[in-house]
Amino acid sequence: MAKEEVEKKGITVKKAENFSEWYTQVIEKTEFVGYTSVSGGLAFRPDGYFVWETVQRAIDSEFKRIGISNVYFPMLIPEHLLEKEKEHVAGFAPEVAWVTHAGKSKLEERLAVRPTSETIMYESFAKWVRSWRDLPLRTNQWNSVIRWEFKHPTPLLRSREFLWNEGHTVFASRKEADAERDQILGIYEKALKDYMALPGIPGMKTDSEKFAGAEASYSIEHLVPDGWAIQGPDFHSDGQKFAKAFGIEFINKEGKKEFAYQNTFAFTTRELGTMIMIHGDDKGLILPPPVARIQAVIVPIYTDANKESVIKTARELAKKLQGSVRAYVDDNDAYSPGWKFNNWELLGVPLRLEIGERDIKADKVVAVRRDTSEKRDVKMKEIEKEVASLLGEIHENLYRRAKKFMDENTHEVNTYAELKKVVEGKHGGIAQGGWCGDAECEAKAKEEIGAKITNMPFDAQHKAKGRKCVVCGNAAKFMANFARSY
Amino acid sequence: MAKEEVEKKGITVKKAENFSEWYTQVIEKTEFVGYTSVSGGLAFRPDGYFVWETVQRAIDSEFKRIGISNVYFPMLIPEHLLEKEKEHVAGFAPEVAWVTHAGKSKLEERLAVRPTSETIMYESFAKWVRSWRDLPLRTNQWNSVIRWEFKHPTPLLRSREFLWNEGHTVFASRKEADAERDQILGIYEKALKDYMALPGIPGMKTDSEKFAGAEASYSIEHLVPDGWAIQGPDFHSDGQKFAKAFGIEFINKEGKKEFAYQNTFAFTTRELGTMIMIHGDDKGLILPPPVARIQAVIVPIYTDANKESVIKTARELAKKLQGSVRAYVDDNDAYSPGWKFNNWELLGVPLRLEIGERDIKADKVVAVRRDTSEKRDVKMKEIEKEVASLLGEIHENLYRRAKKFMDENTHEVNTYAELKKVVEGKHGGIAQGGWCGDAECEAKAKEEIGAKITNMPFDAQHKAKGRKCVVCGNAAKFMANFARSY
Repeated sequence: MAKEEVEKKGITVKKAENFSEWYTQVIEKTEFVGYTSVSGGLAFRPDGYFVWETVQRAIDSEFKRIGISNVYFPMLIPEHLLEKEKEHVAGFAPEVAWVTHAGKSKLEERLAVRPTSETIMYESFAKWVRSWRDLPLRTNQWNSVIRWEFKHPTPLLRSREFLWNEGHTVFASRKEADAERDQILGIYEKALKDYMALPGIPGMKTDSEKFAGAEASYSIEHLVPDGWAIQGPDFHSDGQKFAKAFGIEFINKEGKKEFAYQNTFAFTTRELGTMIMIHGDDKGLILPPPVARIQAVIVPIYTDANKESVIKTARELAKKLQGSVRAYVDDNDAYSPGWKFNNWELLGVPLRLEIGERDIKADKVVAVRRDTSEKRDVKMKEIEKEVASLLGEIHENLYRRAKKFMDENTHEVNTYAELKKVVEGKHGGIAQGGWCGDAECEAKAKEEIGAKITNMPFDAQHKAKGRKCVVCGNAAKFMANFARSY
Repeated sequence: MAKEEVEKKGITVKKAENFSEWYTQVIEKTEFVGYTSVSGGLAFRPDGYFVWETVQRAIDSEFKRIGISNVYFPMLIPEHLLEKEKEHVAGFAPEVAWVTHAGKSKLEERLAVRPTSETIMYESFAKWVRSWRDLPLRTNQWNSVIRWEFKHPTPLLRSREFLWNEGHTVFASRKEADAERDQILGIYEKALKDYMALPGIPGMKTDSEKFAGAEASYSIEHLVPDGWAIQGPDFHSDGQKFAKAFGIEFINKEGKKEFAYQNTFAFTTRELGTMIMIHGDDKGLILPPPVARIQAVIVPIYTDANKESVIKTARELAKKLQGSVRAYVDDNDAYSPGWKFNNWELLGVPLRLEIGERDIKADKVVAVRRDTSEKRDVKMKEIEKEVASLLGEIHENLYRRAKKFMDENTHEVNTYAELKKVVEGKHGGIAQGGWCGDAECEAKAKEEIGAKITNMPFDAQHKAKGRKCVVCGNAAKFMANFARSY
């Protein structure tokens, strides 16, 4: 790549001034994902996919620990199956990609590229479940789904294909099914925090926002720097609705036939977009260390005279760090150290280690944090311990910063005017207020000021008592979070 | 499940007498995979998917070790892209599933559900690769592909959808590209051996059997008990063919533009079918311990009087084994120990531990190997060590047995009559003989006696010198393995 071509690569807008253009530039100028000729279909490049597979592995091992097994079901679903649960098909049919031909032949029945797998899975579950002894049946699959959005796609946030886990579990009683909710949301919340440094607000969705076919939905909601909310992972209580549609019945301990109770839950690659938005800055991406493919980039600083020895020391350093840290030596001759600094900052590598002749003589390196730009001399003999501790500090700082932003931009409101002021304000944010539970009030706020109820946060429900609905003024049943939402 | 319903579950034919019916029954009566209403589309149940994810993880970590990064590309490929490399599209178009509609709208351009991802990936590679410094670019993705076979599907072996890895790598020189072949085939061969206890024969494919668009293809071939061959993982040298079709060019060290050299390689869920065929027996599946979701099933043997204490001891045993072995206690009251023995044998669990009152008094358990039916008393205080060592022995025995079968059924042949005798014989097998390299001889053997050249094994090429082609009698250039093949 010619030098001038690369110099143009830096982000040219401020995140605080033009958030949407900033996001577009980050997507286009980094090496996280790439556009393809499929509209709304992205390529996950090594840096981007690494984030996904790392979080995926963390969640997967937690699922296994609590007794969930992975399965895999066909991606093409016959049309008649998709139609078995009415609310479900109504929710998904408008966005289904249909396979109508194979080779040169027209198919007898159209096949949907899975938008989600309830219908194809539950047909089998009905065969597998016979007795209470077969329950619980707790399964999960990691795959990709197609939902043909007709709105303008936003990379990662609104894509026509995304990767996810879809958990599908079957229980003998509502009580057991319900007990799974906190377990799963807990796993998701912990993975978001420990791996992506993302805080979120868990709560219940309203009836009008729940999953097509579910009895109740729950979500973890994020707030991004433009003051809009983004829905994170979710969990759905299906009750016996799908069991009745697909005939998932079992003989209970008393010898009687009964329909089973089901849940579904999902964590998607949307989180990668949320992560970029929340942590990135005017220089580009900032990757939380646990999900950074390269955690520390070593940049040797040399002259023609000492090039060989400096690069040699840099490589020895990388070797020393190997095993505890994912380190990379950038010994590319074509660029100056300054250019490299900018480039690795753009790509979001959390820690930079600079090493030159003076450092070698002083038996140290200069460590530069991506999150704070703070520089620190680190003694060579303490390098492993120090790098590990710096990466830990960076992660904690990213989380703390994001949590602080979320908390500071969540405002308690008591009236419609206050609600309006928050949601329509320059910085947006979440307006938390009483809600009577009426879908009309919910619709009014959405239509008039674009404020959706993102969810009804678990930890705020105790405040609902004695309050009034911020829309109609009647007695509040819930505390609801209103916000503009992606 | 009613008792009589389950008693019917056992395999009712002998593997040696009716192999194809045996395979069908194993698929239908175990819990490895399941049929769905998608013709040719299987559900991978927990036991089956566990095999896949275990081998996948082993291969994935080897890929990472040698510098290959995972990526993910869209599953829907625009028709114009698929058509860019002529041999490639000719090879795949007849089996492509076409998406023509989204929701109620007809698409402007048809989209292929990926049969393989060269075309969508290389469009991006052309943008990513600029200079020799960007090379090698070594990527891989784990996904599923659709190839709409019109022949009768065979579960796992010939399915319309399968899971696989598709490796796609780009190099600056043919030499570097070629050096990857042994690396990858070595990783595949080792994973097959260490995880699935499967031996195989690595070699080069003939021109007429190579991958659509490749310059040369290589494979690892298996021999299954009915005397037929099954192709295992493969590796393709694409030379500059795709690079020219997609414009993957780079500035070399001398400052000149050059087309890159590419490879692709794949390991698929077909192996799960091969594994079932090779290891299974008249009682059902036999799962190699490293890929068995349950490695040891503990069956407590009790009367009404001692039930509680026996089950308690069984559970303590499971707990003791936890961490080193995947153990499961079958304390289901509805069935007798004998019924359970049969059931777990059917499902292929490699080791059974029986524990009753007499065993408890003698401070031992009875261990029964699935592969040999051998029973052995194991002292309780040595249980962890002994179970681990038994599982190791089972794995070695499965591999040794399969290797012996493969070796004993590979026959060196010198004439067409001998070739015919082997291939058309009751036990089939591989006929290894000289081949002149002429496609006509290859076609003749295939048409007349159904003998395909599976590959030209690396380790036999030294024997070609001075030989004659088993078909035409002219001088042989290669040693080729002829066999009927799935």
